[in-house]
Amino acid sequence: MKIETVDFFYFAMPEVTTDADGSQDALIVRVSAGGHIGWGECEAAPLPSIAAFICPMSHGACRPVAASVLGQKLEGPDDIARISALVARDSMDLLQAPHTLSGIEMALWDLLGRRRDEPVWKMLGYKRSEPKIPYASLLFGNTPEETLERGRKARADGFGAAKFGWGPIGTGSVKADADQFAAAREGIGPDAHLMVDVGQIFGEDIDAASQRLAGLDAARVLWFEEPFFGSAYEAYAALAGMKSKVRLAGGEAAHNVAMARHLMDYGKVGHIQIDCGRIGGIGPSKIVADLAVERGITYVNHTFTTHLALSASLQAYAGIADDRICEYPAAPRPLALAVAENPILRDGNGEICAPERPGLGVDVDLPALKPYLVDAEIKVGNQTLYRTPRID
Amino acid sequence: MKIETVDFFYFAMPEVTTDADGSQDALIVRVSAGGHIGWGECEAAPLPSIAAFICPMSHGACRPVAASVLGQKLEGPDDIARISALVARDSMDLLQAPHTLSGIEMALWDLLGRRRDEPVWKMLGYKRSEPKIPYASLLFGNTPEETLERGRKARADGFGAAKFGWGPIGTGSVKADADQFAAAREGIGPDAHLMVDVGQIFGEDIDAASQRLAGLDAARVLWFEEPFFGSAYEAYAALAGMKSKVRLAGGEAAHNVAMARHLMDYGKVGHIQIDCGRIGGIGPSKIVADLAVERGITYVNHTFTTHLALSASLQAYAGIADDRICEYPAAPRPLALAVAENPILRDGNGEICAPERPGLGVDVDLPALKPYLVDAEIKVGNQTLYRTPRID
Repeated sequence: MKIETVDFFYFAMPEVTTDADGSQDALIVRVSAGGHIGWGECEAAPLPSIAAFICPMSHGACRPVAASVLGQKLEGPDDIARISALVARDSMDLLQAPHTLSGIEMALWDLLGRRRDEPVWKMLGYKRSEPKIPYASLLFGNTPEETLERGRKARADGFGAAKFGWGPIGTGSVKADADQFAAAREGIGPDAHLMVDVGQIFGEDIDAASQRLAGLDAARVLWFEEPFFGSAYEAYAALAGMKSKVRLAGGEAAHNVAMARHLMDYGKVGHIQIDCGRIGGIGPSKIVADLAVERGITYVNHTFTTHLALSASLQAYAGIADDRICEYPAAPRPLALAVAENPILRDGNGEICAPERPGLGVDVDLPALKPYLVDAEIKVGNQTLYRTPRID
Repeated sequence: MKIETVDFFYFAMPEVTTDADGSQDALIVRVSAGGHIGWGECEAAPLPSIAAFICPMSHGACRPVAASVLGQKLEGPDDIARISALVARDSMDLLQAPHTLSGIEMALWDLLGRRRDEPVWKMLGYKRSEPKIPYASLLFGNTPEETLERGRKARADGFGAAKFGWGPIGTGSVKADADQFAAAREGIGPDAHLMVDVGQIFGEDIDAASQRLAGLDAARVLWFEEPFFGSAYEAYAALAGMKSKVRLAGGEAAHNVAMARHLMDYGKVGHIQIDCGRIGGIGPSKIVADLAVERGITYVNHTFTTHLALSASLQAYAGIADDRICEYPAAPRPLALAVAENPILRDGNGEICAPERPGLGVDVDLPALKPYLVDAEIKVGNQTLYRTPRID
């Protein structure tokens, strides 16, 4: 079969705020080939990602993503890898291209799986889908009291793990941050996994980041996520070498396999976090999961949006029993909840698995998303290169 | 003064081909502040770069570039660095943002220089603008005979240095490639600097690339550019360690300082090539030039488009007398030639300097560009977020 259409649906909440909450909009991709449909999601700015698909060619190494996707043969996983390599080469100078490709690549896996009637993780070579401990992905409150409440709520909601991110960490004193870490621990309880994400707040300032280690150790934090710019491998390695029980985590911004590999090999992280909606989809995510196993590094998904993205992000390490923890969007905005007709629910143990259903196992509920559809149009010369598809 | 407007002009040739020739379209940026004007150029896909400026916010770390630029105070170079840091933080998840910022950042330097009546290189701390040996940037012919002719023509045009790129290299036999290198050497003459650029053709295949070293050495090639993917530092380092006189070069795709630093420190290149229109502009280019000096690595600009981009790209190492070679667009398309009213011409020695005129010293000839203006429009909801500005 051949890839016939690729449609981008841009959804957004009526109001989008500056909160570090990626579920306020969504870019959902629908691919059709040979009478089959597949779904994917770019974890990316919607408008530039759409523009990267439809823009006019600038030159041979700066072609739109569409040029390497539409009309391509799609019979098996090798075709997906071939298409991805073509995008990497012919859209080499189009920076946004990997974000655009990510959602398409997921959709190609989903489509193939639906056609073959098997889940994506099986096509990746895994024998079974292992249970994961979902952690509630939460933002720090403005005060330790707010953080404490959020931790308590996550615990009451049955989460055995929680990650607190962003908020005021790194903007005040070392003591203030330690109080936040302690509040998070108190809220989620003594036995839960607790992780901390500071969203690159320390830039390349190793000293400032290292001053937080004592507070993190006191709160028995499992990992310290993104203390530095994503590419500050030297700073990661320096911090990783310091005396502390906390391991470093990062990688969510990796938009190719090499960036993830470098963060492991040069940056010495203990947990590698891959966003399937940014790195180019499921194929490159699986390669990173294999590299992590070789290195004794723990693979973790990065997912802050919908259950479609969650399913896609679980596939790469679905069969790795030792990598137990997964990110789980605990409190997304209504639009993100509306995407999946059949969300990935926690079982009696509070755990989740990548679905047994074919493909990604998530059906996209387009009619439910209609209220969030953003009407967009891109014209060049006399041609309309993009217009939001209709939802009937 | 405050930044009042940022206008993007998208120009393209009537026909854009798959040639590896970046001068077939151009994205020119005009910034106004306090009654002054500055010009810059993004070396980037125009439509996605414009979209990254005007797109709706997705969340706090995925804001449009405009949010960090419009209305900002602009009094000195520190403000430019501050604005760039703001973009890096608030557009962290918008992959295209550094390409968009690059043209704006150049324009801010140009504007400041015009206001202060001094060239940008002086604002960067250089005492004088040192002469550079421009190399003709050429594509390999389909046959050694074509390559020979192109080399002879460059020599006849007075070039004492030439770089041949892309073409069939890496797609046929080792012998065929060696014949091409020999033809290039014969064409440009025995005393000229000769460089070879293979546009990442070997991916991460160290063996395939290493087989070309003998042919490169035989043709006395100064540098071997982009044998691998831009981020394949491990492959670069392996090849750099092999017995050969040729030094590796790369870096054009760096869209932040860290990527350039890693290619030097992990990849062991001998020449670091920075495209000012991709790395975020002149400030980050200058930081890389300083890092290169510390390491004994040669800095070279990467410029394949207009003389506006050429001036911007020269500024970062204008005052480094030892870094003699510069890339010079030898045969750009008419639109690229039309951009600069006052191009940077070679002197009697065939050399060029960054202009002594204020700012970037290049005046953009908008009326001459009118035939190439691309009419584009981006609408979201009821709002027109972008429409091509008029040229009167």
